[in-house]
Amino acid sequence: MAESVGAVTPQRLHCPEPLLLACGVPLAHFDLVYETYGVLNAQRSNAILICHALSGTHHVAGHYAGQPRSSGWWDNMVGPGKPVDTNRFFVIGVNNLGGCDGSTGPSSLDPATGHPYGPHFPFVTVEDWVRAQARLADHLQIARFAAVMGGSLGGMQALQWSLTYPERLRHAIVIAAAPNLSAQNIGFNEVARQAITTDPDFYGGNYYARGVIPERGLRLARMLGHITYLSDDAMMEKFGRDLLANAPHFSLDVEFEIESYLRYQGKKFSERFDANTYLIMTKALDYFDPALAHGGHLSKALARARADFLVVSFTSDWRFSPARSREIVKALLDNGLAVSYAEIDSSQGHDAFLMENPDYFAVMQAYLTRVFEALPHA
Amino acid sequence: MAESVGAVTPQRLHCPEPLLLACGVPLAHFDLVYETYGVLNAQRSNAILICHALSGTHHVAGHYAGQPRSSGWWDNMVGPGKPVDTNRFFVIGVNNLGGCDGSTGPSSLDPATGHPYGPHFPFVTVEDWVRAQARLADHLQIARFAAVMGGSLGGMQALQWSLTYPERLRHAIVIAAAPNLSAQNIGFNEVARQAITTDPDFYGGNYYARGVIPERGLRLARMLGHITYLSDDAMMEKFGRDLLANAPHFSLDVEFEIESYLRYQGKKFSERFDANTYLIMTKALDYFDPALAHGGHLSKALARARADFLVVSFTSDWRFSPARSREIVKALLDNGLAVSYAEIDSSQGHDAFLMENPDYFAVMQAYLTRVFEALPHA
Repeated sequence: MAESVGAVTPQRLHCPEPLLLACGVPLAHFDLVYETYGVLNAQRSNAILICHALSGTHHVAGHYAGQPRSSGWWDNMVGPGKPVDTNRFFVIGVNNLGGCDGSTGPSSLDPATGHPYGPHFPFVTVEDWVRAQARLADHLQIARFAAVMGGSLGGMQALQWSLTYPERLRHAIVIAAAPNLSAQNIGFNEVARQAITTDPDFYGGNYYARGVIPERGLRLARMLGHITYLSDDAMMEKFGRDLLANAPHFSLDVEFEIESYLRYQGKKFSERFDANTYLIMTKALDYFDPALAHGGHLSKALARARADFLVVSFTSDWRFSPARSREIVKALLDNGLAVSYAEIDSSQGHDAFLMENPDYFAVMQAYLTRVFEALPHA
Repeated sequence: MAESVGAVTPQRLHCPEPLLLACGVPLAHFDLVYETYGVLNAQRSNAILICHALSGTHHVAGHYAGQPRSSGWWDNMVGPGKPVDTNRFFVIGVNNLGGCDGSTGPSSLDPATGHPYGPHFPFVTVEDWVRAQARLADHLQIARFAAVMGGSLGGMQALQWSLTYPERLRHAIVIAAAPNLSAQNIGFNEVARQAITTDPDFYGGNYYARGVIPERGLRLARMLGHITYLSDDAMMEKFGRDLLANAPHFSLDVEFEIESYLRYQGKKFSERFDANTYLIMTKALDYFDPALAHGGHLSKALARARADFLVVSFTSDWRFSPARSREIVKALLDNGLAVSYAEIDSSQGHDAFLMENPDYFAVMQAYLTRVFEALPHA
């Protein structure tokens, strides 16, 4: 097992210039919280930006001092000797605008009022995130990333980087993503949103001042999410129809293992995640659709891209199935771009992008070695 | 288009003898509401029992007098000249015990208290339903059904009939069903249950006296249900990513067509269905597992069956996939039973069992013609 990057410390960037969001609202100023791992080389050419998914954070790798169990969410992928090798690359994790882990979002205090933004925080899109992330790149004086990468919603950001700033990344690594959400995907998001917004403790998003959170809604949203992150097969392997007790007890108490798991995941999530952020993040997912402005033609939408691409999908991912990744691959090939595509055999469902899998990690390691060796070096 | 059975009238059977339920509770007496279509022949051999699914009722075909839009839920399948031909068969639809459409259930008045049973109504199982339905068969003096049939949870009842009363049915028609629920299936049910039971208007199931219903929870349960009844493809065909307006409006109001559809379905359902019944029905689904008492060996569990079988599945049904139906087929064949199996090509998902589809209806028509022609006739 490769080692970890060790103890890490988040940093904060204050961006004083306004950012005009896709929804038309100018955000006067904002903060981004981020972490970095590895060392930026003299040419400033070895930076990799890692974009997080729905519930991810800037804490990608390593742990916080004195908290050995606080591992980053992609600690298996990022570190010395790991596929995203911090001996080679300068790696950046950033909490997205609208988030709830330090970057400016609905739970942040609005300087204009001294109260949390709450439901008044503007809707942000994948495009907005990319433009905010570019402010961080400017601050770190990174003119061009070696790669921008991410899984799920993070993969959508990597794809968007190749469209918004085609010259600012050499490679885009798009994992377990899709060119847009299907009606089914939007439907699941809508159930989650309705669970939150109809929770009497939501108060139209103004729950902060009341000392409550829409905990029931957040739990339901996360339980539902977890079902869609796992495959039917993975759930059967992990939980089957196992009962906590020996026999059905004919009550509404938890009795199947899968119920226990989902309730636990829901509870844990409701204790750490902001409901308004969850709403904003799911809407950003729903809205993402680069082909929309091109009459639905993804190939036309991706004509601006200049990066080389690695696209990765997982066979049992029914949230963003391999067929959705192949749509991206086809559109990139239509534009004559260099595309590597790996469809990884896995029973883990959508969550596979977060898990160690020899085939997956070998593909990542090989591709990123190629990225590294082609860099302009000292 | 074949004609309808026309105006129909529900009937009520009071069963005064106690029924010992699988949960160990004796139900002192109960009512079953049912409808019949067609004429029972002199040999009483042409009866078909139709078992309903999660949210179905006894109102299978025809309409209520003066209410032309009150068509039964399987009116396309059951009627004169239709696959379940009421010119040939005497067809029975019955609301299950624990239901909310007239048969004794949680919203019924408990004669002992004069108040609704509410959360004190005992949990019922598929086995209990079959035993209750047998009381109705006794009352109608039907010693042996020509067929017992149903889709989804209704198919599970048809399968259970072949095990509880092997000599009381000639044919079992098991459509879009499974030999038990997968962990994913149970997970979805559990999210629905948590949505209902954590709704502040649920009051532990004692909401009747308070003049409220856990409407939020019921809406969420039904929205989620609908997503699992449709295939991803069917939802894309029907709704796509279409917006109600021309452009995103960056709010939490409904904006995608699929959101509008799900909210409408949720609202409609919450106005007609009892929450305690929903909880009981989903638990009956979760518990159904005839193989459990046989060490998980489905073939051993089905050794008691004597009926001939028609098993039908639909290619895009991801709730109860064709693979689950094939498990039933294999176990029946292991026992040397006569099994016909049709895997119908459909993009409609689980809901396909309710929809007119030429291949599906041709299979049903052909099979039921064979059932009819082999009956002991006058």
